[in-house]
Amino acid sequence: MLERTRIQQALTTVEIGSTVTVMGWVRTRRDSKAGFSFIEVNDGSCLRNLQVIADRGLKNYQDEVLKIQTGCSVRVTGTLAASPAKGQEKELQAEEIEVLGWSGQDYPLQKKHHSFEFLRSIAHLRPRTNTFGAIARVRNATSMAIHSFFQERGFVYVHTPIITGSDCEGAGELFKVTALDLNHLPARQGEVDFEQDFFGRPANLTVSGQLEAEIYALALGNVYTFGPTFRAERSNTSRHLAEFWMVEPEMAFCDLQGNVDLAVDFLKYVFDYVLEKCLEDLNFFEERIDPGVIKNMESMVSQEFARITYTEAVDILSKAQAEFEFPISWGEDLQSEHERYLCERVFRVPIVITDYPKEIKPFYMKMNDDLRTVRAMDLLVPRVGEIIGGSQREDDYDRLLQRIEESHLDPEDYWWYLDLRKFGTAPHSGFGLGFERLIQLITGMNNIRDVIPFPRTPGNVGF
Amino acid sequence: MLERTRIQQALTTVEIGSTVTVMGWVRTRRDSKAGFSFIEVNDGSCLRNLQVIADRGLKNYQDEVLKIQTGCSVRVTGTLAASPAKGQEKELQAEEIEVLGWSGQDYPLQKKHHSFEFLRSIAHLRPRTNTFGAIARVRNATSMAIHSFFQERGFVYVHTPIITGSDCEGAGELFKVTALDLNHLPARQGEVDFEQDFFGRPANLTVSGQLEAEIYALALGNVYTFGPTFRAERSNTSRHLAEFWMVEPEMAFCDLQGNVDLAVDFLKYVFDYVLEKCLEDLNFFEERIDPGVIKNMESMVSQEFARITYTEAVDILSKAQAEFEFPISWGEDLQSEHERYLCERVFRVPIVITDYPKEIKPFYMKMNDDLRTVRAMDLLVPRVGEIIGGSQREDDYDRLLQRIEESHLDPEDYWWYLDLRKFGTAPHSGFGLGFERLIQLITGMNNIRDVIPFPRTPGNVGF
Repeated sequence: MLERTRIQQALTTVEIGSTVTVMGWVRTRRDSKAGFSFIEVNDGSCLRNLQVIADRGLKNYQDEVLKIQTGCSVRVTGTLAASPAKGQEKELQAEEIEVLGWSGQDYPLQKKHHSFEFLRSIAHLRPRTNTFGAIARVRNATSMAIHSFFQERGFVYVHTPIITGSDCEGAGELFKVTALDLNHLPARQGEVDFEQDFFGRPANLTVSGQLEAEIYALALGNVYTFGPTFRAERSNTSRHLAEFWMVEPEMAFCDLQGNVDLAVDFLKYVFDYVLEKCLEDLNFFEERIDPGVIKNMESMVSQEFARITYTEAVDILSKAQAEFEFPISWGEDLQSEHERYLCERVFRVPIVITDYPKEIKPFYMKMNDDLRTVRAMDLLVPRVGEIIGGSQREDDYDRLLQRIEESHLDPEDYWWYLDLRKFGTAPHSGFGLGFERLIQLITGMNNIRDVIPFPRTPGNVGF
Repeated sequence: MLERTRIQQALTTVEIGSTVTVMGWVRTRRDSKAGFSFIEVNDGSCLRNLQVIADRGLKNYQDEVLKIQTGCSVRVTGTLAASPAKGQEKELQAEEIEVLGWSGQDYPLQKKHHSFEFLRSIAHLRPRTNTFGAIARVRNATSMAIHSFFQERGFVYVHTPIITGSDCEGAGELFKVTALDLNHLPARQGEVDFEQDFFGRPANLTVSGQLEAEIYALALGNVYTFGPTFRAERSNTSRHLAEFWMVEPEMAFCDLQGNVDLAVDFLKYVFDYVLEKCLEDLNFFEERIDPGVIKNMESMVSQEFARITYTEAVDILSKAQAEFEFPISWGEDLQSEHERYLCERVFRVPIVITDYPKEIKPFYMKMNDDLRTVRAMDLLVPRVGEIIGGSQREDDYDRLLQRIEESHLDPEDYWWYLDLRKFGTAPHSGFGLGFERLIQLITGMNNIRDVIPFPRTPGNVGF
C-alpha cells in the first residue's frame, strides 16, 4: 500500500511538526549555494505547490536529488515545518526523497510560458499546468454544484440516450453513427441499406436530451440531464465544440414564470457554490486570466436579474442612441450586439428575455394566446451573452401537431412526443445550459477548447 | 406560478389538517356507492400514491370527476386527513379537482399486468409505472452515491471524450462516427477519403474513458469518470447494451492492493447509501421483483470480501467435486460457471480475484515480476458474477511498448499514452464498473434493457 498525504491537506489541516509522506510531480528545483535544494512539488489536490527542502545530507542528494528535473514524480517523507519564506506557511523538510519516475530535457512543460494553442497539442500533459489543473477542479466543483442544486430540490437525474434514431429537434448538422464498414456499405436500390446496420435504420448522436427528459418529467415531475451532446457544425471558432456537455432540467406542472425563477436561482446557486469551494483556483483566474471574474460572479449572486419581453427589448433597442450593425425590428432575432447592449449598457445586470416571435424559435415551445409569440426565455449575462435558453413546452396536442407540420418535420417521427400530449398532458417547462460556456464564464477562459479536457472540433479528435 | 406540494412530502412531513395542492397522474378511480370517489394520484416523487377523496358535492363531480380515467393529469386542492383505510396514514379530502390533461380508453397503461417486453415498446410511458418509476429513482440515488463516494475522498470528476480517434483498447466492435453523407461518400484510391470528414480521419464512439482518465490521474492524483460508453457487439442478450454508463476511477500513487481496497469500500458505500435513501423503492423490488435483493445488499455491506489470486482460484476449481461444462486449467479464462461456483459454493461472499495470466488480459495491465501474470483484479458478487474489473497499470515505458507490440497494436496510436510513462511515470491503478449491472444487482431486474431509460440494442434505437 502506498500511503500518502495530499498536499492540499499538508498545507491546511496537518499540523506543523507532523511527519508526512507526499507524492507528486516536481514543478521546479532550485539549488542553494548553502548546500541544499528547494523542490516545488504539486500533486493536483490544489493549486499550490509544497516546497520541499532537500538537504545535501540526504543519502541520494548527489546522485539523484541534484538530477531531479521538472516533471519528475517523487515520493518525499519528511517533517512539516513553518516556512520562513514569504507567502507560504509551511514547507517540508525532507528525510527521504525517492524518484518514482524521471523526466527529461525533452519534457514539453519546461518552466516557461506556453501558449494555450501549444498546450492544446499536448492535452495529455496540460492538466499538469496551473491553469489546466485549476480548470479541472473548477469543472469538478461546478458539476457538483449542478447536482446539489437539483438534488436538494428533489429533481431526478435522468440519463437520456446519446445515440438516437431521429433528428428530434430539426437542429440540422448531426453526426451519424454506424456499425457498417464504410468502405463496403451494403446498398439497396442505389442507397445505403440501413436495414443491415446495427440499429436497422439510420442513427445519430443526440443534439439534446430535452425531448426524452420531457418523457421523464411527465412521469416523475422534476428531472434533469447532465451529459454530452453533439453538433456537426463546421464552426471553427473559439465558441463552438462538436462535443460538449449540457444541463437540461425539465419540470412538470411548471410554467414559464417558474422556469425563469428556477434558471435564476440555479445560476446564483452555482456561482455561490463555486466561490465557496474553489476560491484559491478562482483567485488564480482573477490574477492571471481575467481580472473581474470573481466580482462578476459575486455581483450576479446578489443582483436582481432584469426580466423583459422580446417586444420590450425591441422597443428599447429601436429607441436606442446606438449604432447597430444589424438594424432591429420586431420579428428579427436579437444579435449578440443587441444582447450586449441591453445587458451591459441598459440594465447592467443579467436579463431574462421572454416571449419571442414563434418564427425564430423551435416547434416545441408553447404558443401564447396572441398566436404570434411563444413562451421562450433566454438568459443573458454580461461579458458572455446568452447562457441559458428554455421555454414552456407546447402541451396542446393540436397546436403541437400544427407546429411540427409548419416546421416541415414528419409527425410520425414524433409519435411518442405527441403521445405525451394525448395522455395526461400537463404544463411543463425546461431549459438548457451549455456547461462549457458556464465554465468560461466562471474562469474567464477565452477559448472554449480550453475548458474541456479533450476538445473535439473540425480536424481535431486526438487523445 | 403553479405551486404544488410533492406527494412524497404530503405523505411524510406535511401535517394532517394542512391545506395542500398536489398535481400528478391518476392511477385509478373507484366510485363508492355512498356518493364519492377514491382517486389514486401519483406524481413520481415517491412510489406511493396519495388517495384523494372526491365527494359528489364537488361542483364538477358529475361532469368531470366521474370521467377521470387512468393516466389523466390532475390538480387537487384539499385538506390532508388521517386515513381510516388500512396501510396508509393520510388521504386528501378534495375541495377542488381540476383535470389538466385527459387520458382515454386507448391509454396503453390500463390497470392490469403488462409484460416488461411490452413496456419496452412504450418507453415513453413506462416511467409512469411503479416498477420504472422506482428504477428511475434508484438510478438517481445510485448516481449520487457514486459522486458522494468519490467527492468525499477528494477525487476529481473528469469528462473524458465520447468521440475518439482510435480504438484505444483494441476492444473490437466500435461504432463509427461521421459527418459525411453515407449515400455520397468521397473516395480516394478506392477507399473512403476521411480527410474530407469532420475530423479529417476516422472517428469512433469510446469504449472506455480509462486511458484519458490516466492522463488526469497523472496530473491531479485521484479522478473518476461517470458517463456513457459504447460497444457495437451484436449480442442480443439480456446482459448487453450498445450504450451503457460506466464509472471509472483512476488513482495515481496507488497499487493493486489500494485498488482492491477502494473497489470494496466503493461497493459497500453504494449499497449502504441506496439502502438508506431508497428503502421504499427497494421494498417494492424485494416484494415484486426479486425476494432477497435487500438482504443480499445488507450482507455485502457487512461481509468481509474474499481475496484470492487467479492461481489459487484455478487450484480450488481443479480440486472441486463439481462438474463444469468448461474444464479449467491454468491460462484459461474463468467462465461464469467457475465464478459462480467460487462465489456461491466455496466462499459465499463476494470475491476479488487478482493476478491473472497476461494472455487473457489487456496490454495496459502491469506485469508482475513472474512475467506470466498481470496485476489485474475482478470483483465477483453472488447472483451477478463480475461487477468490477480493474488493474494496476503498466507504468514502465519499455514493458508497455512491448505489450502494445505483442498485442498487434500500433505504438504510434499510443504516443501520448506512452508519454505518460516517459515523463514522471508513477504507479497507478483503476477499475471500471458497469453502471447498469450495478442497478440490476440493486433492483433484481433481470433484463439490462429495463434498468436504462432508453435501451440501445441491435435493431432498437427508438425514442
